[in-house]
Amino acid sequence: MTDDERWMGAALALGERGRGRTAPNPCVGCVIVADRRVVGRGWTQPSGRPHAEAMAVAQAGDAARGATAYVTLEPCAAPGRGPACADVLIDAGVAAVVVAIQDPFAAVDGKGLAKLRAAGITVRVGARAAEAKAAMAGFLTRQRHGRPHVTLKLALSLDGAIALASGESRWITGPAARAHAHLERARCDGILVGRGTYDADAPRLDVRLPGLTDRSPHRLLLTHGAAPAGWTPVASPEAIAALPHSINDLLIEGGAGAASAFLGCDLVDRLLIYRAPILVGAGKPGLGDIGLTDLAAAHGRWRRTALRLLGVDVLEVYERTR
Amino acid sequence: MTDDERWMGAALALGERGRGRTAPNPCVGCVIVADRRVVGRGWTQPSGRPHAEAMAVAQAGDAARGATAYVTLEPCAAPGRGPACADVLIDAGVAAVVVAIQDPFAAVDGKGLAKLRAAGITVRVGARAAEAKAAMAGFLTRQRHGRPHVTLKLALSLDGAIALASGESRWITGPAARAHAHLERARCDGILVGRGTYDADAPRLDVRLPGLTDRSPHRLLLTHGAAPAGWTPVASPEAIAALPHSINDLLIEGGAGAASAFLGCDLVDRLLIYRAPILVGAGKPGLGDIGLTDLAAAHGRWRRTALRLLGVDVLEVYERTR
Repeated sequence: MTDDERWMGAALALGERGRGRTAPNPCVGCVIVADRRVVGRGWTQPSGRPHAEAMAVAQAGDAARGATAYVTLEPCAAPGRGPACADVLIDAGVAAVVVAIQDPFAAVDGKGLAKLRAAGITVRVGARAAEAKAAMAGFLTRQRHGRPHVTLKLALSLDGAIALASGESRWITGPAARAHAHLERARCDGILVGRGTYDADAPRLDVRLPGLTDRSPHRLLLTHGAAPAGWTPVASPEAIAALPHSINDLLIEGGAGAASAFLGCDLVDRLLIYRAPILVGAGKPGLGDIGLTDLAAAHGRWRRTALRLLGVDVLEVYERTR
Repeated sequence: MTDDERWMGAALALGERGRGRTAPNPCVGCVIVADRRVVGRGWTQPSGRPHAEAMAVAQAGDAARGATAYVTLEPCAAPGRGPACADVLIDAGVAAVVVAIQDPFAAVDGKGLAKLRAAGITVRVGARAAEAKAAMAGFLTRQRHGRPHVTLKLALSLDGAIALASGESRWITGPAARAHAHLERARCDGILVGRGTYDADAPRLDVRLPGLTDRSPHRLLLTHGAAPAGWTPVASPEAIAALPHSINDLLIEGGAGAASAFLGCDLVDRLLIYRAPILVGAGKPGLGDIGLTDLAAAHGRWRRTALRLLGVDVLEVYERTR
């Protein structure tokens, strides 16, 4: 691991502090390093301001002069609700800026880097880019595809059931897996369920983790009709493109109908599979028809990015390859 | 790891050489160690004779005098087709015998250990007992429950399908997983499929791995009727108790009907799940009804003993806890 990668790791960790609360802005992290010591730390604050760089520069003060700033996303180039981050870094006198990924947002998209370089600052791009992309997937998907990033959560038995045939589903997974699923709720901006799940379970979809109970996301209902109070109706998977930009990260929590509808439209970017060490047999399957007619076409679409033990359960994370 | 455990590891590895070819005998391994050097190595030979101890003692010759023998199973106490292994070790002049597990077979069951001790030999029991039990599970299940040890193999998509709804199942898993499944065939004595799988696929069930093509197990068909030439009919899961003792390890390869029948009778000891990173949706489920009516009853029955990557697939191994 290079020094750039090591310091960028600190910036990524700081960025995580804002995850789930910064939309429509991305959850950026920043550290300013002088003589191998951190002199400033920042991350995008709730609602998106101040930006990570402004916070880190304010903390560093004079120590930023001649220092290196590590930022998980290209600094913005034009003033908005505050001054442009590129200008903030230039004014602070940093000597170098290391950026994980360029910002595809049209108003930035290289202009921040160009501004820094024009001011004589050394700029390096690409340290831990894959992790930065994963951390800001919601924002990036919104920029690139005009819709939120979609994670499908499935809690399954070894044989792929989400419930007994009777509908009994409490519980398939154990407490560690369920707590992790609540953490995933806190990291997203919206949670969607299908009409069947709503009618059967009337789920609260809130975050029930100590210290994170204020992080409960917007609730969305996949329905052709009206949604009850406190819920936003979504008429079809494609309709997520029309959701407000405050929803960059969308979690689909159930049931098989909603999951299959999104998969059938190829609108799932990430799978979170919580797998319990139980066999159900002839239970309710986690998925219905997703339009697959040829096994060969199923292969190569999902790449495993994590495999973790959560108590007696296993968490498998897959990301779409194309 | 103690010295006993280290040397027992070598004996266990030798025992593996016989796996799948020694029934009705267990696949025992033995090393004889003098002054921290291996002077003799043995493992149960195909068809069960000579025994591991006799082979190791023959190789060690005079070097066995005063040495320590490490054996994965208690040496036999009474002469059979050859002299009793306890006598072989006594005559060889070993000073100590370390045994992984006692042999529950009625003609041994502590008598081998007693004979060694009566001859003034130091005896220690228990080094790497769990691994020895797993390696000789077929023999031990036959002794304790009067039936073969049963492994159920499932090759599943992430959502638990063994095939498309059309029946297309080639292939769910990739080449590494399929090669591993062939190795599991070579390690068992019999392979069973249900009538539906036989009629649909007419599977060969042979071992198609270089160097192991002579290790293809007996083929068994779960059927109320007659079985075709080269196949042994099995009328019900319970009927496996009547199988010849040359079948200590039984592998169930498909399909959902046979798997569910054995699970429904609680006659599966071990699950081998090869999991491919694909979603099928509304496919053929790997299991039918197994008689589960209460989710709570499903928990705690299976303990994960391995989780390995095989190419893009994952192998999960579970053993029954009770």
